[in-house]
Amino acid sequence: MDKRLSLLMFSGDYDKAMAGLILANTARDMGMEVTMFFAFWGLSLIRDPDKMTLEDKTAYEKMLDLFTPKGPEALPMSRMNFSGLGKWMLEEMMEEQDAPRLIHFLKGARKKQVKFYACKLSVDIMGFKQEEFLPETEIVEAKVYLEDALTSDIQLFI
Amino acid sequence: MDKRLSLLMFSGDYDKAMAGLILANTARDMGMEVTMFFAFWGLSLIRDPDKMTLEDKTAYEKMLDLFTPKGPEALPMSRMNFSGLGKWMLEEMMEEQDAPRLIHFLKGARKKQVKFYACKLSVDIMGFKQEEFLPETEIVEAKVYLEDALTSDIQLFI
Amino acid sequence: MDKRLSLLMFSGDYDKAMAGLILANTARDMGMEVTMFFAFWGLSLIRDPDKMTLEDKTAYEKMLDLFTPKGPEALPMSRMNFSGLGKWMLEEMMEEQDAPRLIHFLKGARKKQVKFYACKLSVDIMGFKQEEFLPETEIVEAKVYLEDALTSDIQLFI
Repeated sequence: MDKRLSLLMFSGDYDKAMAGLILANTARDMGMEVTMFFAFWGLSLIRDPDKMTLEDKTAYEKMLDLFTPKGPEALPMSRMNFSGLGKWMLEEMMEEQDAPRLIHFLKGARKKQVKFYACKLSVDIMGFKQEEFLPETEIVEAKVYLEDALTSDIQLFI
Repeated sequence: MDKRLSLLMFSGDYDKAMAGLILANTARDMGMEVTMFFAFWGLSLIRDPDKMTLEDKTAYEKMLDLFTPKGPEALPMSRMNFSGLGKWMLEEMMEEQDAPRLIHFLKGARKKQVKFYACKLSVDIMGFKQEEFLPETEIVEAKVYLEDALTSDIQLFI
Repeated sequence: MDKRLSLLMFSGDYDKAMAGLILANTARDMGMEVTMFFAFWGLSLIRDPDKMTLEDKTAYEKMLDLFTPKGPEALPMSRMNFSGLGKWMLEEMMEEQDAPRLIHFLKGARKKQVKFYACKLSVDIMGFKQEEFLPETEIVEAKVYLEDALTSDIQLFI
């Protein structure tokens, strides 16, 4: 199939990340090309928990690091988070249904070669480093997102 | 008009549900075809308050039921909810303007034959039953959403 | 370039407003036509802080005014607001990177002649007056948004 899906992943919520990744995996299974452009809070999804660093960061950047999730599985919910209780419940319910977890959908998207872009302006403002991201991540400007979205058949802001 | 609108209703917020349903009603009035695909929190919008059941549900599913809204009019706001005060105010203001309520826009969408899909994975994880939804709801996989969205002229994630 | 971008600005969050305005500015720089349709909380972005009025407003409308942001720079964050602390930090970090503030992106969008629409139903319900908005704002019904979106190459709900 010669169709393309473009997702702008703005939110850093666990449930919205799940929605985006399920769409990405399904679209790839259908033979569509998929691009995910991560901006602002969405960047948490593609930071490698094992490679986060405080080196060469300003005081603000270190403070921000304290408050941002340590990798995909640490993302909060957009609703009913109840200090993590709601999310724990959702995870338990997913396990009962043998539904894959967020990290599996992320692995699936990587394996299926979904294209990962990170928004350069967000990366600069938040003081993240290239080496903190999953290695296939390409840091690009908003212009590259728009050019890609223009050639896509479905564009969503998540 | 031979145009189509595709809405992915992820949010369970009262105000966002309102936005989606106003677009759906307006698009139908213009002669467009409209599909609404409800996922995660969005499912609250198409559950029939009179048909919710706790039968055959696991402990987690019952807990989730406790915390999810009892039908469309019980949905919280995305902002300024103030334990319901902000929403009450909005409803009063809508009444002063003789603006229809959420439930009327939902009725309108049903009468105008907006197509209602429910996301199968969300339904399974949350333990909802087919009979808890508005009867015209069709439970389908993400693939069906994507196929429909591919043939639509406007696609939004709400 | 003969391409068009259509943004439905529903959210009144500082960070999402930033995302929308960065896309709008970038798209204009690429030669695309851009329409922003502001609805519900998104209306805060195009209200002129110097022209807000309580005259001829009902009690509810005055109460709403108390709780809605006084202009673009007063918008809260969608996450990590911490009573304003998170936003202050983000602003400090943006300054360190010499990144323009929200108000500059808004000025840029106006100068580059991004088309500003305000949702008539939202305006009526919230009791806002035409003169409270930026002067180029045109108040239109949802139908006008849909007609515009139908002829656009990218449509996003922000």
